Amino acid sequence: RINPDRLWDSLMEMARIGPGVAGGNNRQTLTDADAEGRRLFQKWCEEAGLTMAVDTMGNMFMTRPGTDPHALPVYVGSHLDTQPTGGKYDGVLGVLGGLEVVRTMNDLGIRTKHPIVVTNWTNEEGTRFAPAMLASGVFAGVHTQNWAYDREDAEGKKFGDELKRIGWVGDEEVGARKDKMHAMFELHIEQGPILEAEGKDIGVVTHGQGLSWTQVTVTGKESHTGSTPMPMRKNAGLGMARILELVDEIALSHAPHAVGAAGHIDVYPNSRNVIPGKAVFTVDFRSPDIAVIKDMEDRLKIGGKKICDEMGLEVEFEKVGGFDPVEFDKDCVAAVRNAAERLGYSHRNLISGAGHDACWVNKVAPTAMIMCPCVDGLSHNEAEEISRDWAKAGADVLFHAVVETAEI
Amino acid sequence: RINPDRLWDSLMEMARIGPGVAGGNNRQTLTDADAEGRRLFQKWCEEAGLTMAVDTMGNMFMTRPGTDPHALPVYVGSHLDTQPTGGKYDGVLGVLGGLEVVRTMNDLGIRTKHPIVVTNWTNEEGTRFAPAMLASGVFAGVHTQNWAYDREDAEGKKFGDELKRIGWVGDEEVGARKDKMHAMFELHIEQGPILEAEGKDIGVVTHGQGLSWTQVTVTGKESHTGSTPMPMRKNAGLGMARILELVDEIALSHAPHAVGAAGHIDVYPNSRNVIPGKAVFTVDFRSPDIAVIKDMEDRLKIGGKKICDEMGLEVEFEKVGGFDPVEFDKDCVAAVRNAAERLGYSHRNLISGAGHDACWVNKVAPTAMIMCPCVDGLSHNEAEEISRDWAKAGADVLFHAVVETAEI
Ligand SMILES: NC(=O)NCCC(=O)O
Ligand SMILES: NC(=O)NCCC(=O)O
Repeated sequence: RINPDRLWDSLMEMARIGPGVAGGNNRQTLTDADAEGRRLFQKWCEEAGLTMAVDTMGNMFMTRPGTDPHALPVYVGSHLDTQPTGGKYDGVLGVLGGLEVVRTMNDLGIRTKHPIVVTNWTNEEGTRFAPAMLASGVFAGVHTQNWAYDREDAEGKKFGDELKRIGWVGDEEVGARKDKMHAMFELHIEQGPILEAEGKDIGVVTHGQGLSWTQVTVTGKESHTGSTPMPMRKNAGLGMARILELVDEIALSHAPHAVGAAGHIDVYPNSRNVIPGKAVFTVDFRSPDIAVIKDMEDRLKIGGKKICDEMGLEVEFEKVGGFDPVEFDKDCVAAVRNAAERLGYSHRNLISGAGHDACWVNKVAPTAMIMCPCVDGLSHNEAEEISRDWAKAGADVLFHAVVETAEI
Repeated sequence: RINPDRLWDSLMEMARIGPGVAGGNNRQTLTDADAEGRRLFQKWCEEAGLTMAVDTMGNMFMTRPGTDPHALPVYVGSHLDTQPTGGKYDGVLGVLGGLEVVRTMNDLGIRTKHPIVVTNWTNEEGTRFAPAMLASGVFAGVHTQNWAYDREDAEGKKFGDELKRIGWVGDEEVGARKDKMHAMFELHIEQGPILEAEGKDIGVVTHGQGLSWTQVTVTGKESHTGSTPMPMRKNAGLGMARILELVDEIALSHAPHAVGAAGHIDVYPNSRNVIPGKAVFTVDFRSPDIAVIKDMEDRLKIGGKKICDEMGLEVEFEKVGGFDPVEFDKDCVAAVRNAAERLGYSHRNLISGAGHDACWVNKVAPTAMIMCPCVDGLSHNEAEEISRDWAKAGADVLFHAVVETAEI
């Protein structure tokens, strides 16, 4: 069993870096706070005897050697970056849970045949630079590094420049190790309500639902809110409002097998007495069924175009992120389930509602995820909370699944 | 008649300060560009023999003495600040038109009994600091100066601090001269389509419609767009969308005697994979009929509350600006109409769709407005355009109305 107090203390210490405004965190990717979080994690890893490698996307690989020089490593990890108003556990639990696995192995004098690599993937959240899971995506060969380096934040700063600025461009070629992975396990909070509602300790994640991000740009005409007669208006903000309603209708038509919303919304010039001439927003559709995702994307485009045509507005749709539904590796999933059984934790199968680095890594290596409950299913909120017992159960299962897979 | 080339050249020279991104201007109030525009205007006025006074709200009063030491001044003016993506004429034409009136008097050796005061009112647009017409409002006693000084921009900077920073806090007590005004005339572009459509040179502004700005804050719950089931969502962005639709319905129900829209829209935390936990937007309702404005405000509150109640959202309404419909002074209006007649310009009566400093000044002094057409009725847009002939006609009428009122 892992040491729950040490794990909790590390979570709380990491949470002091990049504090939020309401008890959570704002440690967005490639900020100074991100760099500080990385240094703390590096220090802890080095104290635990791990050696660091960093790739050209800033992904951190902290290695504990195995006993067999030919055995491929078992990976554990997640991400240390957060939402702008994020929680203390989303991602962090998976990284520090991985570190706790190694610390526990050290305590117990466990040597594994396969090396263990604790990983921190860069820019999982995708808030500052879309899409989410950017660096694990480049690692898995889904995106090119050049394309990733060119992603821009809201201020026009580029991913590549910001990675350099914070000093975390490594010298290992990204993806160089992707064909030399024995397995990967990611521990994560559920971010949904099912486990808590059913009183289960552990979610055995068998699948991940797919995602589609469509950035919609509605163009009207800036004009005066007072002196422009109603029939002459080309109100991009009103067009957006109608499309937001459509997004809700489309998602509900597939309920409970789909969700949809827009989290990102900007109007221009954003002045009280100017009819918005432009509205830019990103529609987030998800479903475990790829046909449903395709249907929602199509209906958004057809319905959005119709709304805008009727209002004399222009509209453009750009896909800015997405991944297909994922089926995790049967053996890795079994290792997770066996570990929960062996330890006496209650568990159930889950489909992940969110995207995770594990979804991309699953393309190049046998992968599985472990979930633990979170209070009210709340995440992407500073009030995100978990109990020590939940964290303990998750890390215990991670420990056992890893030890089983890495072989003593 | 005024000198149209000199007027046009001054308009174009002022437009070089605080250029926009598409041929217009971004010379928002209390920015460095605003200060630069003020200095250029000051220089021109001093070259024309005017003496400057500045009040504690930064309003600039440039005086040409009259022949009768007991005669109260006739004011002409408008504002030099612009929208973030504003035009070259909105406000500027009224200030530089006023200067052109004085320059023409100098050319022709005209001395008037009443002094002439060319005025630049601070923060007419209200984009950076709500409400619009802030400094003329304090001048007229509608707001207190302390309240105005505390208005904050989107970055939390205060009006009072920014006025000091750009160096334009004057030493004249604001409003000190408000009981000593003989009359005031404001020349402005129509910002609407009527004059151009009817081929009229001049709008004789008899009334101004009233305005109500209500800032609406919808509060839901930030949560994950992927893993939060649809029935558990408290999507403040969707609540906002429904209220935006309601705003349109309410305004259309009073058409053509009302307009309504929201130009300012912000959602928080504005991240693609976070259900908006908060949406803040400002509803702009206008009508020449105060009962209609009141009805629209009431229906927004009742209907908005109902929408939010049904969605499990909280909602708050805060009035952040407004003025009642205005009836301009009959004698001043007649002076404008007479001038247009005398000069042979086609004209019609107009109700101003926008708010103007003249609307507040009308509370303390006999006031009227002159409007000239603008292309496609477009304003609050960098593409705002007028012809030299329109500018000339407007300034000619201003010149004659002022000379008639100030008495030779
Ligand atoms: N786990 C998580 O919040 N990932 C961010 C990517 C997503 O939006 O699903
Ligand atoms: N004229 C003008 O655009 N004034 C700004 C105040 C308003 O929104 O009416």
